[in-house]
Amino acid sequence: MELTNWLEKRVRLSPRKTALVFDDKQETFLEIYAAVQEVAGKLASFGVRDGMYVALLGKNDRETFLMIHALQQLGARTVFLNNRLTATEILFQTQDAQVERCFYTDVFVGKVDGIRATSFTAVMGAPILEPPLVSHFAMEDVASVMYTSGTTGQPKGVMQTYGNHWWSATGSMLNLGLQAGDSWLCAVPIFHISGLSILMRSVIYGIPVYLEERFDPERVDKFLQSGEVTLISVVTTMAQRLLDVFTTPYHPNFRCMLLGGGPANQSMLEACFEKGIPLVQSFGMTETASQIVTLPPEDALLKIGSAGKPLFPAEIKISEHGEILLKGPSIMAGYLHNDLATKAAFDKDGWFQTGDVGYLDDDGFLFVLDRRSDLIISGGENIYPTEIEHVLMAHPNVLEAAVVALSDEKWGEVPVAFIVAKEDMDTEQLYEFCQQKLARFKIPRQIHFLDELPKTASQKIQRHRLRGK
Amino acid sequence: MELTNWLEKRVRLSPRKTALVFDDKQETFLEIYAAVQEVAGKLASFGVRDGMYVALLGKNDRETFLMIHALQQLGARTVFLNNRLTATEILFQTQDAQVERCFYTDVFVGKVDGIRATSFTAVMGAPILEPPLVSHFAMEDVASVMYTSGTTGQPKGVMQTYGNHWWSATGSMLNLGLQAGDSWLCAVPIFHISGLSILMRSVIYGIPVYLEERFDPERVDKFLQSGEVTLISVVTTMAQRLLDVFTTPYHPNFRCMLLGGGPANQSMLEACFEKGIPLVQSFGMTETASQIVTLPPEDALLKIGSAGKPLFPAEIKISEHGEILLKGPSIMAGYLHNDLATKAAFDKDGWFQTGDVGYLDDDGFLFVLDRRSDLIISGGENIYPTEIEHVLMAHPNVLEAAVVALSDEKWGEVPVAFIVAKEDMDTEQLYEFCQQKLARFKIPRQIHFLDELPKTASQKIQRHRLRGK
Repeated sequence: MELTNWLEKRVRLSPRKTALVFDDKQETFLEIYAAVQEVAGKLASFGVRDGMYVALLGKNDRETFLMIHALQQLGARTVFLNNRLTATEILFQTQDAQVERCFYTDVFVGKVDGIRATSFTAVMGAPILEPPLVSHFAMEDVASVMYTSGTTGQPKGVMQTYGNHWWSATGSMLNLGLQAGDSWLCAVPIFHISGLSILMRSVIYGIPVYLEERFDPERVDKFLQSGEVTLISVVTTMAQRLLDVFTTPYHPNFRCMLLGGGPANQSMLEACFEKGIPLVQSFGMTETASQIVTLPPEDALLKIGSAGKPLFPAEIKISEHGEILLKGPSIMAGYLHNDLATKAAFDKDGWFQTGDVGYLDDDGFLFVLDRRSDLIISGGENIYPTEIEHVLMAHPNVLEAAVVALSDEKWGEVPVAFIVAKEDMDTEQLYEFCQQKLARFKIPRQIHFLDELPKTASQKIQRHRLRGK
Repeated sequence: MELTNWLEKRVRLSPRKTALVFDDKQETFLEIYAAVQEVAGKLASFGVRDGMYVALLGKNDRETFLMIHALQQLGARTVFLNNRLTATEILFQTQDAQVERCFYTDVFVGKVDGIRATSFTAVMGAPILEPPLVSHFAMEDVASVMYTSGTTGQPKGVMQTYGNHWWSATGSMLNLGLQAGDSWLCAVPIFHISGLSILMRSVIYGIPVYLEERFDPERVDKFLQSGEVTLISVVTTMAQRLLDVFTTPYHPNFRCMLLGGGPANQSMLEACFEKGIPLVQSFGMTETASQIVTLPPEDALLKIGSAGKPLFPAEIKISEHGEILLKGPSIMAGYLHNDLATKAAFDKDGWFQTGDVGYLDDDGFLFVLDRRSDLIISGGENIYPTEIEHVLMAHPNVLEAAVVALSDEKWGEVPVAFIVAKEDMDTEQLYEFCQQKLARFKIPRQIHFLDELPKTASQKIQRHRLRGK
């Protein structure tokens, strides 16, 4: 099944609506389309064509925005490179994906060592050809490839089809609604599905993307006060930083702060409630083309701590081992050039195995307990790092906390905590604090203080980098 | 491709939301689901099972609402019978569809003569079995069959799949949006696609249907003033009757009066504008699973007289003969047991041939000129009845007007007008009125006054019944 090329269709439906706001400049869908066509004409000079795998190393700016759409217009399959990776990691991904072309924004020249790559500046200076643009997007065609963030194991290229993006966008709309005047602020990386999905929704819904190069809490705070922005995607760190600068209530137009990349702790939820911030918790992965389980706004306060229910087109169940399994049309086509990993990702009935652990309550709400791979098993007892981290975070002097497994002769594994503190503090205080709230076997055996915790580009804490420290 | 049984899914997502308001009583999705399961258990007593064609002769009431959903839960394919048809016409449809069962609401017992049919009362009194309910709705499965209203030609059974209903509902949502607190008033017949599509959207969107047994302008007027109802589907006659009783402005929550079944005339559009009524014009057919071309609210006043643009998933073009052609996933699977008619309905590239005549303006907006089959060709000139009718309607003493072809030795065909006047009037006045506004060949050769015009159940004027009068 195929639909008319989405951007072309959107331009025909709403040419004068705003498509992009970047660097405080607004452009309509018609204007963006003209610019995209020009970039596509230039990319054609480099032989980009329908079905070709092309790597893109960009950032959250207008140029990258245009490149993404131009590659889609040419029918290319874009391999999104994370710009925080090292040259070695990028080399691995471009080789693994067998990309035929690689384009990068100039500042990242140092990250494409040893790869035949073309800078955006070179693209923009190229002659403009008149290549055939795709008339239709086939739902089963691969639109994007993203390597999983790699908090565990070897990175694999997740193939996201146009159908995956479509069903994700419409599934989200059935949950969050769609209103005249909606707009979505994107300060999450557009090389991640959290960001790319905003670009796709913009075209499907006909709403503007407010694209921000960096997450600047003061600047975002102003947008949310002004009423210009009605939806925003954040991870917990961003939500916390917004809370830190919060002074004036947000505009009533602002209707959803979609939280991904890990659950919020109780104190954050309470702070948002007090300040009237419409926080919406969700659960999703690169493999599910963004959020697939979302807490409906009306249940936000009834089910604190829950990631919600699967979107209308999706299904969820918990395996007998406690793993979260998912089904639905937004779930990836598979891992690129990796049939083995693809097969391993789905069970015999076609359920996608998330690797995460959770449970459904009696009303069908999902509670995510932990990344399965981070599970600590100590003396036969399951220990979920998140639980301990939430306790530590509740201490007034703790800014961030991560808990990982340490091998132990007697117990197999024991938990160890890494802390970023607001001010110097006494370890003993923290042990006592834990003793009040945790069963003995859950209390960290060691507590280490760090200046910061290792994080991915999307601000997820990388527990695996703390192991063995 | 398949999705979880929509009603079951909706109940899991929003059990406590209102699903139905009928006779001023509200029921939640959970309550409706329990009632539907009970009815399904009773229907199973009559051998209804997955894949069976079952005729349903109901009306806009709770009982029929439950029957519709219960039949879907059992996997039956419901053949919707129009309750204004004669027994002869109903017999034809049930035979043509080869239905295995027929259920009717008791008052229509006289219309099922010669058919083995079961009354709703008999169903409700049957023992409750525990039949298997379908776990999934497959997009390609036939959900409903509706015989085309038959303003022209022999009735044919339009097969609407679950996919058609899904894409219609999501396409509409991408155009009209979806807001917390939305609800859709259904006073159009639920045996027509205009009504059934509201029931389907209710389940997909999770919003209440306000089901009205008859269209009572005073009662509907109150709903629109109260803010309880945010969307309503109407045909022109209903819109006119609402305008006639209008005194107090509608509530700001009320955001869309979706007009189908024929274009509005200029005076109605202006009256709606003056009164702040959010009239949204659209174009659709049984074969397109309801509206497929809709005027986005923001263009309502810029493009008066236009039916709008095709919904996001749909495509439109005009054939070289001026016929409106459509493509998209909401277009019917075909005509039941009628491959010949199905083949004839699509051109060689798969475009559905609507039989209607129209054009697209430079901005891509559709203007429907006429039902192709009603085209009058006079001395080689094309005459579109609608154009003449709009002129006649503009006369202050004309309530309704219909124009049809009359055979003529000299010209082939000439137009003849049928008028419902407010007060007795002079024919000559009307001729003079036309002469000011129409080319000579378009002026009706005869003008007849009637007390009322023949109409279908959905209030479309049946021009064919005026021919030869």
